[in-house]
Amino acid sequence: MDTRWHLAVSKDLSAVSEVMGSSIRSDSPELTEICEYALGSGGKKIRPAMCILAFRACGGEDSKQAVEVGAALEMIHSATLIHDDINDEGDLRRGAKVAYKRYSISRSIIAGDFLFAAGFNLIGGASREIIKCIFEAASAMGAGEFDQKGFEHDPRVTESSYLRIIEEKTARLIECAARSGAFLARADASAADALGSFAHDIGMAFQIVDDTLDVVGEEGATGKRIGSDIMEGKPTLPIIYAMQDPSLGGRIRELFESPRLDWAEAEEAISLIKSTDAIQRCLSKARGMAEGAIGLLDALEESEYKGALRDLARYIVDRDR
Amino acid sequence: MDTRWHLAVSKDLSAVSEVMGSSIRSDSPELTEICEYALGSGGKKIRPAMCILAFRACGGEDSKQAVEVGAALEMIHSATLIHDDINDEGDLRRGAKVAYKRYSISRSIIAGDFLFAAGFNLIGGASREIIKCIFEAASAMGAGEFDQKGFEHDPRVTESSYLRIIEEKTARLIECAARSGAFLARADASAADALGSFAHDIGMAFQIVDDTLDVVGEEGATGKRIGSDIMEGKPTLPIIYAMQDPSLGGRIRELFESPRLDWAEAEEAISLIKSTDAIQRCLSKARGMAEGAIGLLDALEESEYKGALRDLARYIVDRDR
Repeated sequence: MDTRWHLAVSKDLSAVSEVMGSSIRSDSPELTEICEYALGSGGKKIRPAMCILAFRACGGEDSKQAVEVGAALEMIHSATLIHDDINDEGDLRRGAKVAYKRYSISRSIIAGDFLFAAGFNLIGGASREIIKCIFEAASAMGAGEFDQKGFEHDPRVTESSYLRIIEEKTARLIECAARSGAFLARADASAADALGSFAHDIGMAFQIVDDTLDVVGEEGATGKRIGSDIMEGKPTLPIIYAMQDPSLGGRIRELFESPRLDWAEAEEAISLIKSTDAIQRCLSKARGMAEGAIGLLDALEESEYKGALRDLARYIVDRDR
Repeated sequence: MDTRWHLAVSKDLSAVSEVMGSSIRSDSPELTEICEYALGSGGKKIRPAMCILAFRACGGEDSKQAVEVGAALEMIHSATLIHDDINDEGDLRRGAKVAYKRYSISRSIIAGDFLFAAGFNLIGGASREIIKCIFEAASAMGAGEFDQKGFEHDPRVTESSYLRIIEEKTARLIECAARSGAFLARADASAADALGSFAHDIGMAFQIVDDTLDVVGEEGATGKRIGSDIMEGKPTLPIIYAMQDPSLGGRIRELFESPRLDWAEAEEAISLIKSTDAIQRCLSKARGMAEGAIGLLDALEESEYKGALRDLARYIVDRDR
C-alpha cells in the first residue's frame, strides 16, 4: 500500500504490528495462532493510522503511547470482526477463510475475547479519558449491531436509521482513534474536536463506501464475497436508495424483504441496484462527507501529517477494496 | 443466602449490584435486557465477595473502589459464562435458560463483548497493577479453555493437567479478586500474598466441587443439568479418578472416549463414577485445599472479615449448588 498517508506513518505502523504481536503471546500456541491469523490478514490499519496521524499532526513526537493505543484499537476492532463473522455466517475476510471456519466457532469466540482483553490491557496504562472514549465506542458497537439486526429485511429502514447504525458500528471508534492521538499530543480542545469530527465523518464515509463495495466491488480486490450483505438482508445505504427507485424499487424491496435469498436472487438484486442511481448517490454522499471533513482540518497548522490526513480521507472514498 | 461470609459483605454486594446495573445501561434496550438477564440470575458473587472481604480484612474502610473492581470482575466473569454456554451448547445456567437459547447466539456473543468492555471500563480508573492482574487472569481463562478442549474425550488427561486447566479457567481470576482488594487497602506484600494464595486455593477447591456437582448434584439445587460435563467429554477430576478404578475404570474410560453419548450412557457413567471412590477423593482433596488455605490467613490479624473469609472457604467446599 504505497499511498501517501501510509508512507507518512509506515514506521509507526510497523511498530503497531510489533506491539500487537507481543501482546497476543499466550501459553496456548493455538490461541496465539488464531489471533495472529485474525490480525495478520493484511487489514488497512485505518484506526492506528488515524490515531498516529492525529498525534503527529498535533505536533506529537515520541509516538510510543500513540502506537500502543493504535495497536489496542486494531486489536479491539479485530476482536469484533472475529465475532461478527460468526454472527454474519461470513466465509471470507480480507481474501482468507474467516477464523471460525478455519478454527471452529468456539475457539474463535474465545480468541475474540482474548484479543479484547489484550487490547484493553494495552490501554490500561493510558489516561482515563482515552479508556472512557474507547469503552464508549466499544459499547456503541454492540448497540449498533443490535440496531442493525432490528432492521434486517425490513424495507421501512430509513437513511437516518442507517446513519445512526454506522455511526455506532464504525464511526465512533475511528473518532476515538483521532481524539486519543490528539489527547496524547496534548492538543488544545479545538484541535482535538476538529480531528474528532474529521475522523467521525471519515468513518461514516468509510462505511458507506464499504457498503457500496458489497454491490460493485470485485471479490479479488475486496477479499469478501460480493452480495453478502444482500443475502443477509443487512440494511445498507445502496439498498435504501435503490428501494426508492420509482420503477425498480418494488422488486428490490421484494428481494430485500425475502428472509432467504439464493445466490441467483442476490445477483438479480445486485444487477437491479446497479441499474438505479443508488451507487452514484452513495459515492457522492461519501465524497461530500470526506471533502467536508477535510475542511475541518483548517483548524490545524499545515504539516506533512495534515497532508497525509487529507490523503487518507480521499483514499477512503476512492478505494476499490 | 444467609451464610456468615455473605452477611459480612451484604451491603457491599448490594452496591456491587447497583454498580453493575448502571454500568450496563446502553442505547439498546434489548442489549441491556440480555446483560441484566445474564447478571441477574442470582449467582453467588464469589469474586466481588472475595475482593471486598480481602479489602476489609486488610483494614480497608471506604469500599467504593473495591466495590467497582468487584463489579468489574463479576461482569467479566459473566461475559465469559455467556460465551462458554454457547461453546458448551449448555441449556441451563443457575436454573434459567442460558442466554443464547433465549436471545440467539449472535445477540449473546455481542452482549458478552459489551459486558467485557463495560467491565474493563469500570476498572479503567484503577491502578495499573489491578488492570494487569485482571488482564492476565482474563487471558489465562482463554488459554484454559483451549487446554480443556485439547483433552476432551481424551483418557490420557492427568490430574496435573486438570489442575493447570482449572487454575487458568477459575483460580486466577479469584486470586486476582483478593489481590486487588488487598492492593486497594494498601496492604503490605505479605498480607497480599497470603490473600492471593488463599483465594487461588479456594478457587481450585471451588472448581473441583463444581465438577463433583456435575455427578452428584441435584438439578433443582445446582440449576444446571447433571451430567453435562460427561456428555461433553470434559476432563474433570471425578472422571480422572474414576478412570483409575481397577474394576470399573475400563468401562468409564470407554464412555469418556465416546465422541457422542446419549443421556442413558451419561447416566450409566454417573452411576459408575458414584460406585467408585472418585467423589470422595475429590471432596477430600477440595476440603484439604480449603483447610490449607485457611491456614494461610494466619498472616492476617483476627477480624470479623477474616472470620468471614474462613466461612467462605468452608461454604465453597460444603455447598450443594
